[in-house]
Amino acid sequence: MNKSSLLLLLLWLAVTGTLICVLVESRFMVYNTTSGVDPCKLNVHLVPHTHNDVGWLKTIDQYYIGSNNSIQGACVANILDSLVPALVADKNRKFIYVEQAFFQRWWREQSESVQDIVKQLVRSGQLEFINGGMCMHDEAATHYIDMIDQTTRGHRFILDTFGVGFDSLYYGRIDYQDRAMRKEQKSLEVVWRGSKSLGSSAQIFAGAFPENYNPPNGFSYEVNDDSPTVQDDINLFGYNVQERVESFVATAVSQANITRTNHLMWTMGTDFNYQYAHTWFKQMDKLIHYVNEDGRVNALYSTPSIYTDAKHAAKEAWPLKTEDFFPYAEYENAYYTGYFTSRPALKGYVRTMSGYYLAARQLEFFRGRNDVGPNTESLGVALAIAQHHDAVSGTEKQHVADDYTKRLSLGYNEAEVLVSTSLACLAESIEYKQCGSPSTRLQQCPLLNISYCPPSEADLSQGKTLAVVVYNSLGWKRRDLIRIPVKMEDISVQDDEGREVEFQLVPITDAYLRLRSYHAKVYLGNTVNDEPKYWLFFPVSVPPLGFSMYFISAAKGDAGSAKSRVDTFQRGDKSTIDIGQGNIVITFSSEKSGITHYRDRKNMVTEPIAQSYSFYTSFNGTDKDRRVSSAYIFRPSHLYSIIPEGKIPPTIVRGPLVEEVHQQISSWIYQIMRVGREKEHVEVEFIVGPIPADDSIGKEVVTQFTTSLETNKTFYTDSNGRDFLKRVRNHRGDWDLKVDQPVACNYYPINLGIFLEDREKEFSVLVDRSVGGSSLHDGQAELMLHRRQFNDGGLDEALNETVCASDKCKGLIIQGKYHFRFDRRGEGAKWRRSFGQEIYSPLLLAFAEQDGDHWRSTSRTTFSGIDSSYILPENVAVITLQELIDKSVLIRLAHLYEVGEDKDLSITASVELRKLFPGKKVGKVIEMSLSANQERSEMERKRLVWQAQGVESEEHKVSRGGPVDPLKLVVDIAPMEIRTFIVQFDNQREQ
Amino acid sequence: MNKSSLLLLLLWLAVTGTLICVLVESRFMVYNTTSGVDPCKLNVHLVPHTHNDVGWLKTIDQYYIGSNNSIQGACVANILDSLVPALVADKNRKFIYVEQAFFQRWWREQSESVQDIVKQLVRSGQLEFINGGMCMHDEAATHYIDMIDQTTRGHRFILDTFGVGFDSLYYGRIDYQDRAMRKEQKSLEVVWRGSKSLGSSAQIFAGAFPENYNPPNGFSYEVNDDSPTVQDDINLFGYNVQERVESFVATAVSQANITRTNHLMWTMGTDFNYQYAHTWFKQMDKLIHYVNEDGRVNALYSTPSIYTDAKHAAKEAWPLKTEDFFPYAEYENAYYTGYFTSRPALKGYVRTMSGYYLAARQLEFFRGRNDVGPNTESLGVALAIAQHHDAVSGTEKQHVADDYTKRLSLGYNEAEVLVSTSLACLAESIEYKQCGSPSTRLQQCPLLNISYCPPSEADLSQGKTLAVVVYNSLGWKRRDLIRIPVKMEDISVQDDEGREVEFQLVPITDAYLRLRSYHAKVYLGNTVNDEPKYWLFFPVSVPPLGFSMYFISAAKGDAGSAKSRVDTFQRGDKSTIDIGQGNIVITFSSEKSGITHYRDRKNMVTEPIAQSYSFYTSFNGTDKDRRVSSAYIFRPSHLYSIIPEGKIPPTIVRGPLVEEVHQQISSWIYQIMRVGREKEHVEVEFIVGPIPADDSIGKEVVTQFTTSLETNKTFYTDSNGRDFLKRVRNHRGDWDLKVDQPVACNYYPINLGIFLEDREKEFSVLVDRSVGGSSLHDGQAELMLHRRQFNDGGLDEALNETVCASDKCKGLIIQGKYHFRFDRRGEGAKWRRSFGQEIYSPLLLAFAEQDGDHWRSTSRTTFSGIDSSYILPENVAVITLQELIDKSVLIRLAHLYEVGEDKDLSITASVELRKLFPGKKVGKVIEMSLSANQERSEMERKRLVWQAQGVESEEHKVSRGGPVDPLKLVVDIAPMEIRTFIVQFDNQREQ
Repeated sequence: MNKSSLLLLLLWLAVTGTLICVLVESRFMVYNTTSGVDPCKLNVHLVPHTHNDVGWLKTIDQYYIGSNNSIQGACVANILDSLVPALVADKNRKFIYVEQAFFQRWWREQSESVQDIVKQLVRSGQLEFINGGMCMHDEAATHYIDMIDQTTRGHRFILDTFGVGFDSLYYGRIDYQDRAMRKEQKSLEVVWRGSKSLGSSAQIFAGAFPENYNPPNGFSYEVNDDSPTVQDDINLFGYNVQERVESFVATAVSQANITRTNHLMWTMGTDFNYQYAHTWFKQMDKLIHYVNEDGRVNALYSTPSIYTDAKHAAKEAWPLKTEDFFPYAEYENAYYTGYFTSRPALKGYVRTMSGYYLAARQLEFFRGRNDVGPNTESLGVALAIAQHHDAVSGTEKQHVADDYTKRLSLGYNEAEVLVSTSLACLAESIEYKQCGSPSTRLQQCPLLNISYCPPSEADLSQGKTLAVVVYNSLGWKRRDLIRIPVKMEDISVQDDEGREVEFQLVPITDAYLRLRSYHAKVYLGNTVNDEPKYWLFFPVSVPPLGFSMYFISAAKGDAGSAKSRVDTFQRGDKSTIDIGQGNIVITFSSEKSGITHYRDRKNMVTEPIAQSYSFYTSFNGTDKDRRVSSAYIFRPSHLYSIIPEGKIPPTIVRGPLVEEVHQQISSWIYQIMRVGREKEHVEVEFIVGPIPADDSIGKEVVTQFTTSLETNKTFYTDSNGRDFLKRVRNHRGDWDLKVDQPVACNYYPINLGIFLEDREKEFSVLVDRSVGGSSLHDGQAELMLHRRQFNDGGLDEALNETVCASDKCKGLIIQGKYHFRFDRRGEGAKWRRSFGQEIYSPLLLAFAEQDGDHWRSTSRTTFSGIDSSYILPENVAVITLQELIDKSVLIRLAHLYEVGEDKDLSITASVELRKLFPGKKVGKVIEMSLSANQERSEMERKRLVWQAQGVESEEHKVSRGGPVDPLKLVVDIAPMEIRTFIVQFDNQREQ
Repeated sequence: MNKSSLLLLLLWLAVTGTLICVLVESRFMVYNTTSGVDPCKLNVHLVPHTHNDVGWLKTIDQYYIGSNNSIQGACVANILDSLVPALVADKNRKFIYVEQAFFQRWWREQSESVQDIVKQLVRSGQLEFINGGMCMHDEAATHYIDMIDQTTRGHRFILDTFGVGFDSLYYGRIDYQDRAMRKEQKSLEVVWRGSKSLGSSAQIFAGAFPENYNPPNGFSYEVNDDSPTVQDDINLFGYNVQERVESFVATAVSQANITRTNHLMWTMGTDFNYQYAHTWFKQMDKLIHYVNEDGRVNALYSTPSIYTDAKHAAKEAWPLKTEDFFPYAEYENAYYTGYFTSRPALKGYVRTMSGYYLAARQLEFFRGRNDVGPNTESLGVALAIAQHHDAVSGTEKQHVADDYTKRLSLGYNEAEVLVSTSLACLAESIEYKQCGSPSTRLQQCPLLNISYCPPSEADLSQGKTLAVVVYNSLGWKRRDLIRIPVKMEDISVQDDEGREVEFQLVPITDAYLRLRSYHAKVYLGNTVNDEPKYWLFFPVSVPPLGFSMYFISAAKGDAGSAKSRVDTFQRGDKSTIDIGQGNIVITFSSEKSGITHYRDRKNMVTEPIAQSYSFYTSFNGTDKDRRVSSAYIFRPSHLYSIIPEGKIPPTIVRGPLVEEVHQQISSWIYQIMRVGREKEHVEVEFIVGPIPADDSIGKEVVTQFTTSLETNKTFYTDSNGRDFLKRVRNHRGDWDLKVDQPVACNYYPINLGIFLEDREKEFSVLVDRSVGGSSLHDGQAELMLHRRQFNDGGLDEALNETVCASDKCKGLIIQGKYHFRFDRRGEGAKWRRSFGQEIYSPLLLAFAEQDGDHWRSTSRTTFSGIDSSYILPENVAVITLQELIDKSVLIRLAHLYEVGEDKDLSITASVELRKLFPGKKVGKVIEMSLSANQERSEMERKRLVWQAQGVESEEHKVSRGGPVDPLKLVVDIAPMEIRTFIVQFDNQREQ
């Protein structure tokens, strides 16, 4: 008798005129999806897409194969498997795909016939690759060289497989306040000039979406999604065509109110959507059919390219956007600035591998690429994947971070063999291609950072000699100071011509021996008891893209002069002491437990400076506010200074090459401040961790520099290691900032360095990996070195990294460096750019134990890959030198300076290409787009010209290097320009 | 430096020999899925399947279209959409599909080319229909006629569409204790003889699965499922082929330990699985390939048919299973016996519609089927769907129950028009096919149960006559008592020949007027003020499959003699009183507030009897034990007797035709006990509800009969209205029952009735709908009439039915009847079977208001659809008489008695088919299988013969009716036999 609701339904049926009728005839529908752009209507571009994280909560392979679904139900193979028939079913349907790391995995599992179908889908434009990199790389924590490399890897695959190159469009998340402003001002879509130096020559049309990259609310059609499906079968209950059309039109009109021109884009899909592509297309087919039947707006299948062409055709002028979109707050109090430092060990490892990969590819080219044997491919792939915005960013689950590390380590292991072999071949002067296995086995020391290096620790007392091969991947001749652990103290160091080389022995302190023994146990699984006693320092000189050799052997005499003098401050000592015998001298105060002054004898500069450590405690969240500090978010509660412990007074190490101050800042922070005799800066080496966890309160550990510079809220941080962007505390260039988080909202990503300037001086700090940093007070600079959290902030686990040995785990310890220096105003760029490049590309060391003099007498002890008469201009770096599969060479030359950054070096430089390939006959040289997937001329020809609002002319004339004369082969490179070439050699095919 | 887990992974890699290698060549795999049965190995039959509830948490249309996914993510269209390409992709893949209600929805949306592909898939055996009914009907709460009808509807569609008929296999859930026993004894698979009468002639091979109908743990591959996928790409991490093969083999071997023969079935799928069929087949392809490569067991794509053939080929003898599998406990304390009564209003409505549908199809045939106009199709479809195991069972969400009700109501509305038209045409003797719109509009009264019937309540004072057409859908001539509400008291009733008919007027009590006014408001949306005063009772006599007419008009004289005498017991009155002037007399005691004795004057039987109401409070659950009373589960805490309220003493109604005792048992229970002068039983009419909700404790309302029968724990309940099965309290025939729930574990579904017997007597109770019942003490019988719950038991809502008017809701009120009677031992079957059939098929009433004598003089006032000289044998019912699309007729004849049930009627009966079709020339008569999808001879030929263990010969010789002589056309029907024929008429095509 319970018919109450029945009656209501019946009445409703009577009203809507819907009545059931059973056993009706076939009602097979063909939906009309042929619509293109309609210039007279509001066009709703439906852009079917998915976003596939190349690792996040699951590893890349788990995402691909669809395993570990209890963590997250996601299988990329499903997406691509289901996509093909869905596109084939209707030629009007379109799709864009991004992450080539996944696409490549899928591609190689397909039959030839499926591959042929996909090729046809790409040719017809139904399937379009967007971004085209191996992953959608992070924007903050990535170095520009890595970004280029990972994009090139994806683009070259697409070029090789589908024969197409393409331009890129970028869309990003933006700050919630910025978004609100842009909605109001219809300025979500802009002309973006990211580089001041390159100006309009590097501008792109860019857009942020009203609702991130999701579909409008109610139009999401993933399997089992709860958006209302279009029910157009009149024979069933719930017929809702009119209702869905109304909702579509209303949503479009509302979006039109915040958008210029009569073109809107709906991003139809989100993370890991299209597990069964049919579910989306079935609904979009219906929407397009019925919405266009309705006629008020025009719905169409589209892609970003079609959309952009339509925007361009509107001939509008667009708001101009300069600089970047950092930092990003998702909501109030939710600044995504914690991840600039999250997982500092992974960030450091990525950076180390990035420099190594650059060097390894050079050596791979010098020896000749081996497609099957050990090569740099797996390292390149691992690095490419590690650029993902949940990889190097530190915003992935722990097991996924471990996966990236594992891949890098495996890639390194393979590249290490290649590097050793290549160096040995070059040393033994074995001809190219014949060098399968050289007689000498060179060893490298990837664990040098924990002072573990078995070859250098060897006992040389039985007439053995340790040959040290020092490789320089920069295009300049280079002098540097080597540091390796040794057990013996009675040794001598000789150069390749047998000349004695000055050296210094610095005792390895307990802090390092603890680091060594614990992590050797962790990495190697066994205990390493036989500890080295000293760090051996000695200067080296190495030609560009080449190596020098040094030889270490037992010495009979007393090494007394080489041994450092070690003094310990006495308790209560209030004296100060100067450190450094070269140009740079620092004054250290025992009373203040730190540096007080910096002096540059050459520049006659003396500056007061203080340096200290602190930590922020993390907001722990309340029942109502779960926006806690996490892998993503930085949300501090309080700042606590760490006062160096009086119990262990600082130690001073003195000697001919370096002088150091060692400080146990706290039980979990150890620091060495080092001044090298020939160095023009101060080097700070730190060991931070384990961050105390006993109170279960998250902590963000920072180091702060206090100077007397009058900086007026202003500081500069680099953008991905490239342009330095001006930052103003509590200020945004694009909107009036409401300051809810006065610390977190001023944090910026730092990949190269941060600097301050006032009317007279500059103060610069350079980093060895990606970190977050800021200047929270005038004259001050701050770097966040490490962080540890205990609240889940979206990963279903806290960012609480631990390291385990023998089943016992302790918090992660970070070892690293930063460097600082003062300059006169306008003169700091030279150090930042040149030394910055040295930090990125440290000297690569390889070791071989020899009987006596054998190697020195039989091998080539010095080598340069470029013409011996040539070095690269000081303002240019070779950021890629890589042999491709077809034996041609990919070379990228990067100008290191911005316009106006240095009075001498911010000028166009010239590189003689021929000199870079001595002994080879350079044939054809083709200038390519940055990612080397199309000729530059073709790209320039296709490039859309966008008009920016209110910009009459450029502030300065943008200069770009012109075409390369094929006879002269001299390449001009303007400030901040990067030029990419493929060089073919005349005998290339025969090689 | 966080490389701890890296190292572990590397070590692990070294152990398993898995190493990454990038940029490898294509590895397109072709999996070998060709395997068939291997007689020498353990065969694992992978049976891909899905189970699609035809309504449960969502309505059938919501499930089909995939709407309302926030309740449950499920879209049947996805399943069928994705299935076709998955089967086409590999001809070895197989799939079984069940629910034709869904399949038909999908089928009519397909293009011809897809339909052709599906036809080919069915022909080749890749796609097999199993069960083949519109739904997978419930086993407990369904009447056998409905089960047959819904299965026929599905099977006929398959026959018409694919030209195939098929046999059915059934597999069910079974009690957890039973399952444990059967695992141990390898008796999950049995030869099942459900009917004692039909014995081996109706046995089937049946099996329960070790783990319900799900795949083994770890082998479930729904989109985003978390079973481990088979990762066989050596280039990715997580390669697990060997591990998955080991798991497969181990699972198979473990299952083999509880299974006879070397054939196992794995049911690969579960509820609403195969949303993207590809995900399953991709994994099963790999499993079959690698498991067979391994070779220890043989994996194959299979179907229940292939599996059953393999089982049969093993020539084993199987354990014999008789009777049914009720009741079912999923776990300890979790008896699925609540649903036997859940939603008693829906159960009542289904039963009412079932009987109406049977009658309507007869009238549709008599008039001639109209394919486009009003017909019985939508009622048939609605009824078919309502048989689903989450429909009539009452285990669906409220909005879904409303959907079933709505469909029944819409179907009824259409059938009502057909019935009225058909009766009018027959009355007006208009020729077949010419009768589009007869001049008389007959009205029916579906709300008679709340005493609402506008035509009978009409004012006849202005010379109007109310013609009452009384249709009898039984094959026997029938005398019965009609009851309709009237406003006037001065009336006369005449039969078709103008003879006065004795009648009685019984005042309509307040309890009914309240029911009427509230529910009229609920159903009709407006208040019905003008109340009828009396129930008019009068006896009718109607020919088989035909009607009689009666005429009611205003009478001048005094109707005093027809008015009932009403006496009210005085408070404190301790007298007893006898009710009934016919054979049956009951003694009612005011002191005991109820019946004390039952007397049958004809049989000279006098029996003490008590009848009362009680309720169980429901177990509310604890933190640790959430197995609460719910839509499914019956789990009582305490039993409370309901002592009739002294305030309102019982009322006695006396008159010539019926005598009644009215009792207000409590504020929410009202009862009328009625004895008709010509009736051979006591009728009890009850109004129960709203069940009090103020204490938020669930309640299960029961009525109990206490007799003196010495029943020794034994009682009998019917199986779907067909065989009566012996039940023994706290006992199972198949295993030693551990009694955890002494009440719930003894509850059984009742569709027809329950009876008790001892050495001398029988006591029977017949019901008007499906209910739960038991005998919890010797001599006692109990029916659960209504229940209301406040805890969620799996539906995300409680079974708390309410009825709302003007936005105010109150608990559901149930109005219904049951009947009881005593017999001498061995003589009760006749009443149970004959009167049971009358309950199922009540007389159908239609009304027409006429001017004076007009209709009686111009129309056919009596009609029978069969030969006027013929009536059906007393032990046979026409359970189907239906015109098919091709104008042939489907007729089903059911023997109503079991072997040995009645000394006279448990014998083979004969029906002269020709007599059932007077005036038509019977052409070809084809005996069909029960569901009419293949000829019976063909079915018998294909039927597998199974050997049951320990059964030498049948207990009694099974008799079945033999072939029908095409000239004589006399059908013999043995006890419990149902025979199905398609009758073609010689001029059929021309009609």
